[in-house]
Amino acid sequence: MAYHLLQRDQRGAERLAHALSHALETIRHCEKCNSFTEVEVCDLCLSPKRDAHVLCVVETPADMMMMEQAHCYRGMYFVLMGRLSPLDGIGPREIHLDRLVRRATDGIVQEVILATNFTVEGEATAHYISELLTPRGIKVTRIARGLPVGGELEHVDSGTLAQAVLERRNVA
Amino acid sequence: MAYHLLQRDQRGAERLAHALSHALETIRHCEKCNSFTEVEVCDLCLSPKRDAHVLCVVETPADMMMMEQAHCYRGMYFVLMGRLSPLDGIGPREIHLDRLVRRATDGIVQEVILATNFTVEGEATAHYISELLTPRGIKVTRIARGLPVGGELEHVDSGTLAQAVLERRNVA
Ligand SMILES: [Zn+2]
Ligand SMILES: [Zn+2]
Repeated sequence: MAYHLLQRDQRGAERLAHALSHALETIRHCEKCNSFTEVEVCDLCLSPKRDAHVLCVVETPADMMMMEQAHCYRGMYFVLMGRLSPLDGIGPREIHLDRLVRRATDGIVQEVILATNFTVEGEATAHYISELLTPRGIKVTRIARGLPVGGELEHVDSGTLAQAVLERRNVA
Repeated sequence: MAYHLLQRDQRGAERLAHALSHALETIRHCEKCNSFTEVEVCDLCLSPKRDAHVLCVVETPADMMMMEQAHCYRGMYFVLMGRLSPLDGIGPREIHLDRLVRRATDGIVQEVILATNFTVEGEATAHYISELLTPRGIKVTRIARGLPVGGELEHVDSGTLAQAVLERRNVA
């Protein structure tokens, strides 16, 4: 891309370089949710319309965006900016779990929803966080595994069907 | 297929015709699970290794096979041989819901797991059955909706993510 810009659009390349260096100077992590922001605390964390009693933990800002697009959640977020991955040298310190614990024990948060991915690393991260938070008296929940909306038994893999049976819900 | 057989393999066509008419004469519905069988009560329903306290309701014999292949379930089945579909004239009588109620209220079954598909018709069928069984004191459960095993937030549709949040589970 850089090569293309330099050859075809030198003015554009200058503007892009300027925007990038500006971003690198001003982008920081929100004090509350740890996502990217240009201010100390981001708009979402400051919004009085959000439910401050629920904190949803996601791996990336993209996952936070997916949650917002699903219009299913009105609480707060904590963005790990990664996941536990011992083989890559990413431990609890690298994903700021100390900051998550401080955030979740502010006395206002009552429930932490673990919305990390259902990959091996996402599951390990969720497990590690629940071990940190449950002894501190915080209700910890995990988003559900199962069949997709509109899904048919014939079209899901065995592992997912097995989880859907294992995690079956009471019908009121 | 019939045309091909008649032209190329007349002996094969005769054998197939014989097998089919034999099947039509001998195949019947199992007295207990309503699936196809050649005897009064099928092998699975007679097996002492299955847990008679749990009854799983599926739409088709194929769905029952999916459940068996997932190795997640050791109870009994009831196969609806369809689903409620008012527009196609398929009501409670056509899918033998009276027989399901009799089967579920045998005094041994304690839980009925609704494993109909998460399609509109499968959901309506599950709802209708739960309305029939819960007043009769039977615990009714529904297989879970949510993210697939191995699934990532970025790769599921909004509806499924919303359900996964709505149906989140307590972490022990
Ligand atoms: Zn924030
Ligand atoms: Zn049977």
